[in-house]
Amino acid sequence: MRYLRFNILFFLIFPLLVFAEDGSQLWLRFPAKNGISADQIISKGSSPTLNIARKELSSHWQGQAVELRTENKDKNLKDGYRIVSSPEKIVISAGKEIGLLYGVYHILRWQQTKADLSHLNTIEKPSYDVRVLDHWDNLDGSIERGYAGRSLWKWEDLPGKISPRYEEYARANASVGINSVVLNNVNASPNMLREDYLKKVKVLADIFRPYGIKVYLSVNFSSPKVLGGLQNSDPLNKDVQKWWKDKAAEIYRLIPDFGGFLVKANSEGQPGPQDYGRTHADGANMMADALKPYNGIVMWRAFVYSPSKDDRAKQAYLEFVPLDGKFRDNVIIQIKNGPVDFQPREAFNPLFGALRKTSEMVEFQITQEYLGFSNHLVFLAPLFKETLDSDTYSDGQGSTISKITDGTLRPAKLTAISAVANIGEDTNWTGHHFAQSNWYAFGRLAWNHQLSSEQIADEWIKMTFTDDQNFLNPVKEIMLSSRETAVDYMMPLGLHHIFAGGHHYGPEPWGDYKGGRPDWSPVYYHQADAQGLGFNRTKTGSNAVSQYFPPLNERYGNISTCPENLILWFHHVPWDYTMKDGKTLWDELCYTYDSGVKKVRDYQKTWERMEPYIDKQRFADVQSKLRIQSKDAVWWKDACLLYFQTFSKKPIPYDIERPVHELEDLKKIKLDMGHHN
Amino acid sequence: MRYLRFNILFFLIFPLLVFAEDGSQLWLRFPAKNGISADQIISKGSSPTLNIARKELSSHWQGQAVELRTENKDKNLKDGYRIVSSPEKIVISAGKEIGLLYGVYHILRWQQTKADLSHLNTIEKPSYDVRVLDHWDNLDGSIERGYAGRSLWKWEDLPGKISPRYEEYARANASVGINSVVLNNVNASPNMLREDYLKKVKVLADIFRPYGIKVYLSVNFSSPKVLGGLQNSDPLNKDVQKWWKDKAAEIYRLIPDFGGFLVKANSEGQPGPQDYGRTHADGANMMADALKPYNGIVMWRAFVYSPSKDDRAKQAYLEFVPLDGKFRDNVIIQIKNGPVDFQPREAFNPLFGALRKTSEMVEFQITQEYLGFSNHLVFLAPLFKETLDSDTYSDGQGSTISKITDGTLRPAKLTAISAVANIGEDTNWTGHHFAQSNWYAFGRLAWNHQLSSEQIADEWIKMTFTDDQNFLNPVKEIMLSSRETAVDYMMPLGLHHIFAGGHHYGPEPWGDYKGGRPDWSPVYYHQADAQGLGFNRTKTGSNAVSQYFPPLNERYGNISTCPENLILWFHHVPWDYTMKDGKTLWDELCYTYDSGVKKVRDYQKTWERMEPYIDKQRFADVQSKLRIQSKDAVWWKDACLLYFQTFSKKPIPYDIERPVHELEDLKKIKLDMGHHN
Repeated sequence: MRYLRFNILFFLIFPLLVFAEDGSQLWLRFPAKNGISADQIISKGSSPTLNIARKELSSHWQGQAVELRTENKDKNLKDGYRIVSSPEKIVISAGKEIGLLYGVYHILRWQQTKADLSHLNTIEKPSYDVRVLDHWDNLDGSIERGYAGRSLWKWEDLPGKISPRYEEYARANASVGINSVVLNNVNASPNMLREDYLKKVKVLADIFRPYGIKVYLSVNFSSPKVLGGLQNSDPLNKDVQKWWKDKAAEIYRLIPDFGGFLVKANSEGQPGPQDYGRTHADGANMMADALKPYNGIVMWRAFVYSPSKDDRAKQAYLEFVPLDGKFRDNVIIQIKNGPVDFQPREAFNPLFGALRKTSEMVEFQITQEYLGFSNHLVFLAPLFKETLDSDTYSDGQGSTISKITDGTLRPAKLTAISAVANIGEDTNWTGHHFAQSNWYAFGRLAWNHQLSSEQIADEWIKMTFTDDQNFLNPVKEIMLSSRETAVDYMMPLGLHHIFAGGHHYGPEPWGDYKGGRPDWSPVYYHQADAQGLGFNRTKTGSNAVSQYFPPLNERYGNISTCPENLILWFHHVPWDYTMKDGKTLWDELCYTYDSGVKKVRDYQKTWERMEPYIDKQRFADVQSKLRIQSKDAVWWKDACLLYFQTFSKKPIPYDIERPVHELEDLKKIKLDMGHHN
Repeated sequence: MRYLRFNILFFLIFPLLVFAEDGSQLWLRFPAKNGISADQIISKGSSPTLNIARKELSSHWQGQAVELRTENKDKNLKDGYRIVSSPEKIVISAGKEIGLLYGVYHILRWQQTKADLSHLNTIEKPSYDVRVLDHWDNLDGSIERGYAGRSLWKWEDLPGKISPRYEEYARANASVGINSVVLNNVNASPNMLREDYLKKVKVLADIFRPYGIKVYLSVNFSSPKVLGGLQNSDPLNKDVQKWWKDKAAEIYRLIPDFGGFLVKANSEGQPGPQDYGRTHADGANMMADALKPYNGIVMWRAFVYSPSKDDRAKQAYLEFVPLDGKFRDNVIIQIKNGPVDFQPREAFNPLFGALRKTSEMVEFQITQEYLGFSNHLVFLAPLFKETLDSDTYSDGQGSTISKITDGTLRPAKLTAISAVANIGEDTNWTGHHFAQSNWYAFGRLAWNHQLSSEQIADEWIKMTFTDDQNFLNPVKEIMLSSRETAVDYMMPLGLHHIFAGGHHYGPEPWGDYKGGRPDWSPVYYHQADAQGLGFNRTKTGSNAVSQYFPPLNERYGNISTCPENLILWFHHVPWDYTMKDGKTLWDELCYTYDSGVKKVRDYQKTWERMEPYIDKQRFADVQSKLRIQSKDAVWWKDACLLYFQTFSKKPIPYDIERPVHELEDLKKIKLDMGHHN
């Protein structure tokens, strides 16, 4: 009977399943009917990559003939390509085969976004050589800060059993130009380097290779000791050096194009060279030497901070600037966009530009650890752009982070950009349908950081949903304002890290974890007291402003010139301080939180009008997520205003919607969110 | 150490306790300084009631001299009184001593409300002879539908230990003219009539007597069998009749002015005369005969309904109209204001006016079983007035329920009015500070049903909080609109009984308790389907409209003349039906729910502006309750709109704030609210 019911049900819902828009196709929603015929695809030779390019064309391309050719003259384009179109034929040329595949995805994107295909020409050269997705996936299948289900990598099934999603994942990355994948969590298990695991990694590398993707691994600095049985993992110990060299050789035997290592060392409890009195340079160089013969690289994270008394925001700078020039050429320092930790808004990390003889790369976070997990719609391109476009003034005006990291400003040994992925085994890959746009946006910006957020949103919406203007325009408006909205209802005006401890979902500005590190407590970051709010990082405070190049040190250090969206990042501001719009700080804070709430409610209204334009499933999924976001926004507003009010002792301006929570009740909320996967 | 800490804490908060405005004083906030001296109070004789009157004057009256005198010419005023003022003296005269006490409270009210005391004159005569508070208090200290803590009556302590609150309670009642108290739940324990309990009751009766208050008891119809050990409780059984006569004699020996019995029989599982094939008249008359020698009365409840197929709203009428004229003179039929059950809004009960030879009294509910417990601010005077002012047309135009029940329309053998109390042992008596106003309002209307809601709110606010216009006017506006607001966010347009089962807190329009009585399920009452919403009580439906006198039967029965605030009570209305404002029913429903939410948010804004005018404690208590109400309003709106939308299949108008809940999540809410006390 049970089976019978199941079967009946199955046939009833089968038609729905077939046409269900579950988001699994991402932005790759090419026409279902066949593409051009084989004789319309002109190319020489055969290779896995070329075959994929041809298959994409024959399956999905519905325009004129396409010629694919590798050209030596295009080698200067690196992974890039040249497209020359006429009504009869499109010629895609590139220095490498992968460039041809990227070119094919380019014209397919044109087709999807309804460009006029008869006369489009372009030359594309990627902004960065190494365009990396970092997976914080653990070997047990969980994902640190992952909100889209468990890991895509089925380590227990590998190497024997292959999920079809491995190739789908590679294709999606290739379609936006991502060419590097760190498979495992930076909080790395030494087991990752075990022979059996390397054999599993090899399988993934083989699947990814035709899509132009290299695999990298996060490594545990103690691996020689833990895995190799050595006495220690001291980087100056010859045995340790040999262990890494042997391990590199072993890896490259299996994976000849292996990318290299990502290392989190001496950070948040992870082992590192300082355990042996050595420097980060000592540690990184040892690994770099092991990888050098194979052109492998080391991405060494600057996210280090010790429980010292000094302002956490200063510590990466203090640690790494003295080491400038001491790193091997195949080491690149991976620096989080802000000096604290992927907050909704941070000042940019002052380390950018400060290392003059060392390669630097940005680390972004696509997964929304601090931005409402996969519940909140937050389009991150504006956040990414804000960092990349930040002028450090390291080499005078115009020394933007993008120019520092892409080799424009100073000759680069290595250029790279990375972001922590938001991908899991959820059917729609990223939990929230709109979180796909952040994977997409990172890929597009890694390829071309000149793209505007608006361009990226525009093409993503057209590819993922529809180009109907009735949908496109309002939804684009939601996306483009969404990050600022999240800042408004979470932590405006430069507030930061007032999240609930551990899981970082929801507000806990009252968090004061006695006995723990002070810099893990929200009260450390907001410094609220009877006088005012904010972290004094000026000369009279931690003097973190001194880490910025002139004139930023002065600009940030002076309350009247400091940008107001960072004012509480750099200053302890009196409650009665008059903001530029004439409001007091307290009132401004209240109105800004309230504005965040209102904007999310407006998103709900806008979204619900979109029902006629898209499929039922994704409409309902997003509708449901927006409801959570709307409730959460009120939660944030009430928690922060009621808590800060205990210091300001001022009324919330009376034209603002009143709190609906009690502060004491909010303090009791303890979410069981130890693991998100 | 624990004790030490307690003591320190105690001394720290002691100053606060002394001045805390905890609401325990109700509306009796007379000047703290002494009143007039003894020689300024002119009166003859001495009695407990007179002594109270004198004490109130000497403690609190700060005006001219006061003379109190009983006058035979004022006997026609019943419990009423006459006040004649000059700048030198106020003369209060009355036919009975209690009238003098009422008169004293009258001038104290004038004093509190800052009337000009030099020339005020008035003659007051109560609208009803018997002005009853029904306590649904159980012998175990719990209170059915009580939301202000456990019972005031400490049965275990009585008769030996006397709570000071017994007298405070009596004084509060006397101050608004309530003269009758039913001590125990209508779902009565037979034990109430046990000798030991009667001795406890006597103690309360003795305390209440000087305040002009008689005690009554709810009795269990099976008492002769259960308590007396008789074979049955058949009202035609001589032994049973004798048992009740003996019991009456026993009661009156202890309490010579005992008021009588309140009886819930053959209703919701309670025993009654129908258990023996007898009628309600048989049962009521038997008790009436037992009480008659002592001038006791029987209040017999018309709230009966059987699990038959017929519309529950018709059943009291069907049951009682055939018995008209068969009741003894000292029986009065106690009829709930509406034919279902104390809903936020009901059509009035068609039994009013339909019993031409039988005394009828209204039963209201002060305790907010269906109006958000003690969490929601709902001022009930407008609801009480709506019923009392309803024109039944029983004897032509102007046959209002007040005129039917107060003896104006037909010579009355007995006039009475009752309401279920909202009083418990909470420090502020009623849970919500504003719920005190409903106790007050009922008392004032029982005394004078001509008072307007506005007058009552005005004097209550002045007495309870302040006469500062900045507070008075906005808060009065909240109170006067609050009942309509609750209707809007709970069940507008005549919707009813779509509460969560059992506890009746929060929405459960989807409630469909299979296997239970259909008329305990919300779906029975709203009848939502693909066509529309509402209970067809017209000729084509249950024809409940036929129970109303012309022209109401026609007016209610015709969808175009039916008042829109009852349209879903009487009609199954198509979703697309055009309402008077041009909106469809569905849109109207949506906007009305939304309007309810907005109004509560406005109350919050208004209330928070009131902070400067009153004490911190009551300000914060009410602020906190309004937050709950505001959240609950959104809960109601979302639950009802999302649920009804599954039938209407129409979008919620897009300018309305969107739901923040998922219907499926709301359906899972199961509150643990079995007992409220």
